This record gives sequence, structure tokens and C-alpha cells, in this order.
Amino acid sequence: MRIVLLNTGTELLAGDVHDTHLAFIAREIFALGLRIEERRTVGDGDAIGDTLKELFPRADIIFVTGGLGPTSDDITRDVTADLLGLKLDENAELLASLKERLRVRGIKWVESIARQAQVPEGAKVLPNENGSAPGLYLKANPKVPSPHIFLLPGPPRELQPMFRAHAMPVLHSIVKGPPRVERRFYKVAVMGESVIEEKIGKKILSIPGLELGYCARPGEVDVRIIGDPKALERGDEIVRAELGDVIFTADDRSLEEVLVKLLTDEKATLATAESCTGGLLANRITNVPGSSKVLLAGYVCYANAAKIDVLGVSPELIEKHGAVSEEVARAMAAGARKRAVSTYALSTTGIAGPDGGSKEKSVGTVYVAIADENEISVRKLFFPSDRETFKQLVAQVAFEMLRRKLI
Amino acid sequence: MRIVLLNTGTELLAGDVHDTHLAFIAREIFALGLRIEERRTVGDGDAIGDTLKELFPRADIIFVTGGLGPTSDDITRDVTADLLGLKLDENAELLASLKERLRVRGIKWVESIARQAQVPEGAKVLPNENGSAPGLYLKANPKVPSPHIFLLPGPPRELQPMFRAHAMPVLHSIVKGPPRVERRFYKVAVMGESVIEEKIGKKILSIPGLELGYCARPGEVDVRIIGDPKALERGDEIVRAELGDVIFTADDRSLEEVLVKLLTDEKATLATAESCTGGLLANRITNVPGSSKVLLAGYVCYANAAKIDVLGVSPELIEKHGAVSEEVARAMAAGARKRAVSTYALSTTGIAGPDGGSKEKSVGTVYVAIADENEISVRKLFFPSDRETFKQLVAQVAFEMLRRKLI
Repeated sequence: MRIVLLNTGTELLAGDVHDTHLAFIAREIFALGLRIEERRTVGDGDAIGDTLKELFPRADIIFVTGGLGPTSDDITRDVTADLLGLKLDENAELLASLKERLRVRGIKWVESIARQAQVPEGAKVLPNENGSAPGLYLKANPKVPSPHIFLLPGPPRELQPMFRAHAMPVLHSIVKGPPRVERRFYKVAVMGESVIEEKIGKKILSIPGLELGYCARPGEVDVRIIGDPKALERGDEIVRAELGDVIFTADDRSLEEVLVKLLTDEKATLATAESCTGGLLANRITNVPGSSKVLLAGYVCYANAAKIDVLGVSPELIEKHGAVSEEVARAMAAGARKRAVSTYALSTTGIAGPDGGSKEKSVGTVYVAIADENEISVRKLFFPSDRETFKQLVAQVAFEMLRRKLI
Repeated sequence: MRIVLLNTGTELLAGDVHDTHLAFIAREIFALGLRIEERRTVGDGDAIGDTLKELFPRADIIFVTGGLGPTSDDITRDVTADLLGLKLDENAELLASLKERLRVRGIKWVESIARQAQVPEGAKVLPNENGSAPGLYLKANPKVPSPHIFLLPGPPRELQPMFRAHAMPVLHSIVKGPPRVERRFYKVAVMGESVIEEKIGKKILSIPGLELGYCARPGEVDVRIIGDPKALERGDEIVRAELGDVIFTADDRSLEEVLVKLLTDEKATLATAESCTGGLLANRITNVPGSSKVLLAGYVCYANAAKIDVLGVSPELIEKHGAVSEEVARAMAAGARKRAVSTYALSTTGIAGPDGGSKEKSVGTVYVAIADENEISVRKLFFPSDRETFKQLVAQVAFEMLRRKLI
């Protein structure tokens, strides 16, 4: 099945609104073994009709989003009916429910609203429980020829429930049978894409019908394999054998979610002592529901005075080795663990830049330490990048050091 | 000029990654009077070549993103060279800089990395200051025929600085002459879109030739006006008269950038005492270069024990009023300011959810306080939303309270 998504809306092309429909629809239909082959985004106006005409012969299913509202730039419904040579009829039931909707909300009726009750002959109405414009489904017609067409509203909070409740059952009836391809998804922290590729690339690609893909973010790589269930099983074995416990999740959780789960299971607690990451560790951990049970305290100690006052780092140690040093990283982790009375403590101290570097310690130099009841380990790293990327990379290293302790 | 953006990457079509390139590039090129006419998204593989072939005759400029990395699914460079009949040459200078990049970072050299040093004959290299894969610019060639082509890396943190530093100058030379429309851009915190619309909407739209747009994020709204220089001048006057100092920036800075600048100018310092925001305030402030001079310390005090130990909040106060209360918010701000010896201190205490709510204090309840040498002010708010949105909304209120003190 060749599936195309057409997003319409000048606001999308102007960069004022981020499209979320692609990600939503892709994930929903993957459960049926369907994948989007191409997505197009065009503005309001003639481009909609031109694009649909071009897509008709080469798609089996088209999803069109946007342009179903009451205003003059909402022309998707008309253009589609026109291309298919279908008459538009006013649907009495729809019109009544539109009037009722406005009455309940105390909104004045304007004539243009009635356009939303227009339905191309033979089309199925997809009710909109969260807005006024209904969706429409037009069955594939070999005579035109045209694919299955779903016209869907632009606002995500209208499209999403409509898609789940009304478009998915139609898709089920189109597809029939179980999906032919499935996918697996693994996440790896603190290991480069090319290193992963060297470990698994050739082996995975030697399995017929298996696709391999990567997506890299600072300090993290997603590895994705797609194929029929049998090939996938073999691919999964290879990935697990080659990467092993370097994989921190195979079910799309974030590294901090994994940590909160591991800490909770172990009834362990955490404290953070952050200099160069400036609160990022604590912020990421506290994005996870339930983190209040594991994160006892976070100390953001940018200034030396705060390292001394809050974490009990000795001024002499800072004087002798500098704030960015293995010794201070150690003392920060130990101090945070003691102060918070936590099972583990993570510390970071480094030079995020753009200023603050010196000849011996240039911008990008960083020490990360972890303390538990038995020992303190430190890693020295070098991440010369922009400030936010630097912070992310350091956080990934710190989190991965903690994860290693917990698995 | 017909301008097309082609996003490549199976991860985009699978819904694993949200594209941000369209919004970024649209905003950048708008300054040159250019607008994107169509955007396409296709997976890795044959579709890239097929789509380019289709687009060549109908575009003047094509931006292609993704597929320039070292792994087997990175084929954009090869496909483009192939379509244009250009030979790929290994660029010695690029190869050397790739090797140096890895050496500095202590990363092992893998043979596949060398692919990134391949350059189609006649192409201009767009240096990548934040990653290994360089961008490429291929001049329009009437013989093929082909448009101007920009090949750009997939990761936004690589593409964005490259685009500004190296693609924009090339675009300038292609476009020539000044743009016919310009735009102004204002950011407002902690005020709803519809309130802003009520203040400026009708007045702005009464000026012929002026476009008005909004983009809302949690706790922040961008207001955008577009038009010819004269209309823009009149629109600017209206926006400034109606919104006044509610506008925190008219030059696209973040709220935290504005705060660090204001604090620096005033030679003032800040401490944060965060319960429900869990480090977000400190993290956002420390994303700004130069913040180490103004943020003395951040205390993430999730647990009551930490509020008592670090911030000196009295156990009786927590017992009497609860940790989420005006009194505790006050005590946290005062305690942080005293401990860090800072000019200002911000505190947050609330119920982010999904658990932890009660009948009197339901999920979403939050108190935000600010202390200076004279007084402590507190605001009570109610933000029933998901955890991350809740944290963002609270941070926006806290930052806006601080900004009001500083202007």
C-alpha cells in the first residue's frame, strides 16, 4: 500500500506552526502494518488541487489535513469533490448539529459556517467531537482513478480523536489481515553512530528484507530495524548480542525514565551536584512522574562559594586543583551524597564556554563523578561544542554512569 | 523564485523525530523576501533521487536536509552527484579536518567516516562547525537543467549555525536586491493569545497590506507582523502602544537571555529554590552564555528534608501550612537568598502531578515567590496540565516576576 500524507496550510510553510500530524498518523497506522511513503506540505490555494491530481495515480491511500473550516481559504473539500467529479450536498443532520454546537456555546451563526455541512456524494462523514468541521472519507474509485481519501481537520486536538475513533476502523477494513512488517526500536547512550554501525551494520543488512536506520541526538542514538516478523527476530538477536546492555531501552523510554524506574525498583535515592550542567540533570530527572521519590536534592553550584558552602568542598582543594578537576568533582559528589543522605550522587564540573577556557583546561573540558557508599568514580571528557549541546552530552555521560551502577 | 524543501529520513516518516527544519529555514529566508512553496518528506533510499528528479524542472532553489552522515543509509550526497552527472572527489582538507576532529575528541577512526569528505566536482563546501558532515552547495546548471541545490545535515544543531553562516551569504548573492516585505517579531510572556488579539487585532488588520500572526507556546506568545516597510512602521507603533513593556523582546531573544542581560547590567545576582520546577529555572538560566556571573546557586529541594536542611525552612511551617503553600514559598525564597548571598531569589513549590494532589490542593496548584532586599512577593497559580508543560508555565511566571523587578 502506497500511503501519502498531504498537509495543507500557509502557516505551516511560513514556519509559524509545527506539524504534528505526520508523527501522530505514522505511529497510529504502523499498528496496521502501514507506513507513510511520502509527505507533502503545500499552502492554501491552487497547490492543493495540483498536488492531489499528481498524487492520485501513485497512491493507494491519501490523508489530507487542513482546509475544512468555514473561512475563504478552506477549500480542501471543494477541490477534492471537483477533482473527483462529485456533487456537494448539504447534509441536514450535520447542519443541525453545527447549529446546536454554536447555540450551546452562545456563538452567533454566520452563513459561512454552513459550508462545513457540505458532503461530496457517496462520502462517509467522520464526526468531529472536538470542533465544528467534520472529516470525510472517500472510497477508492477505479474509474477516476483515485485512491482512498481521508480529509481531516487541521487542529491536532480535533484530528487525533477523530482519527482514532473513525478513521482507524475504516483503515482496518481496507487493510484486512495482520500487518506484514513490524519494527523494533533500541536506544543507546554515549556511543557514536559509526561505532554502532560497525558492530551491527553488515550483519543486519545481510538478512534479506530487513531495514536498518539510525537517528542521532547529542549523546544518544536510536537504532531501528523494520521487517517481517521472522527477519525481525533474527535482527533482534544480532542487535542484542552485539550491543548487549549498552541498549538502555527497547521500548522508547527516555534515559531519565529508565533511571527513575531502576532507582525506584532498588529503593535507592539520588542527589545531584551540578556545576557546568547547571540544573539539567535535576530538570531531566524531575520531568519523570514519580521522580519525587528518588531525587532527594539537587545542588546547582556554579560559584565556588556555593561548592564550599553547600557541598563542603574545601577551599584549599579548589585553590590547588582548580574548580574543574578530578579532585573537585570527587568532593562535590561525596559532599552531595552526604548532605542529601542519598544512595547515589552525581556531580559535574567543566567549562561549558564560550568563555572561561585556559591553556591547560580549554572550553569543553569536563569531569563527571558518581559516588555510592563504597567508592567514587570519575570520568574526564572533552566536548567542545555549543553550550546546550555540551550540557546534554555531559548529562548523558552522568546518567549512563549511574545506569551502569544500577544494572 | 520557486523554493522547495526536501526533508529526507525514514525516522521522520516513521514519526520518531519531529522536523524543525521547515520552520527554521522559512524564518531565515524570509529576511531575503523568500518563501517556501512546497515541502516534501521522503525516506532514505530511492525516493530521494526520484523526488529530486521530479523537482529539478520546477524549482529555482532546493534545500535538501539529512542523509549526509557516515552510515549506510546516508546517500543524499551520492544520489545528487549521480543525478547531475558529477564525479565525487575526496577532499583532502575535509578529510584532514575530520581526522583532527576525531583525534581531539579521542574517538576511534572508522573507515566509513571518510565518506563525509567526498565532494561533487564544482560544489562549494559549507563547513560544519558542530558536527562532522559538511554541507554542500551546487550552483544552478541550465544544461541539466537543475536548480540551486543546498545539501544540509539532518541534526538541527548542525544545520542551523551552518545555514546562518554559510548558506545565507550564498542565498544573498542569488537573490540580490532588497526584499519587498519585511517582518517584525515580538515575544510576550504570561499573557494569552486571545487577550493579545483583543488589544491589537482589529487595529493591525485595519492597516492595508499588513499580515498578523501568532504562535503560542506554554506561557509565551510570538506576535508577528509582515508587510511593506511603511505599513510595518505603523503596525509597530500600534503593537508597542498597546502591549508596551509586556513585550520582553523584539529581537527574538529567549526570556532567560533577557534576564541574564538585565541582571548583568544591574550587577545583580540570582539564586533559585525549586521544588516543583525541579531544576528547570537553573537549567534555562545556565543555557545562556555569561550566566555563571549572575546565577550564584540553585537549590532543587524536592524533599521536605532538603527544604529544611538547605533553605532553612522551619519544619513547623511545613507541618502547619503544607509544603505547597504561600508561607513555604516565601521561606524558600528568603532562605535561598540568604544562603547564596544573592540580590534576588526565586522559589517554586507546587503539585506537578500526575499524583500528589488532594481535595484542598489539586494537581496544578503552585506558588511562585521572589525575594529581594526589601520584600518577598508571592503569586498563587493553577496550571492543570502534563508535567513538562506545568514546569514550563511555572518557569515563565517566575521569570516574568523577576523581569518586572528589573525593568
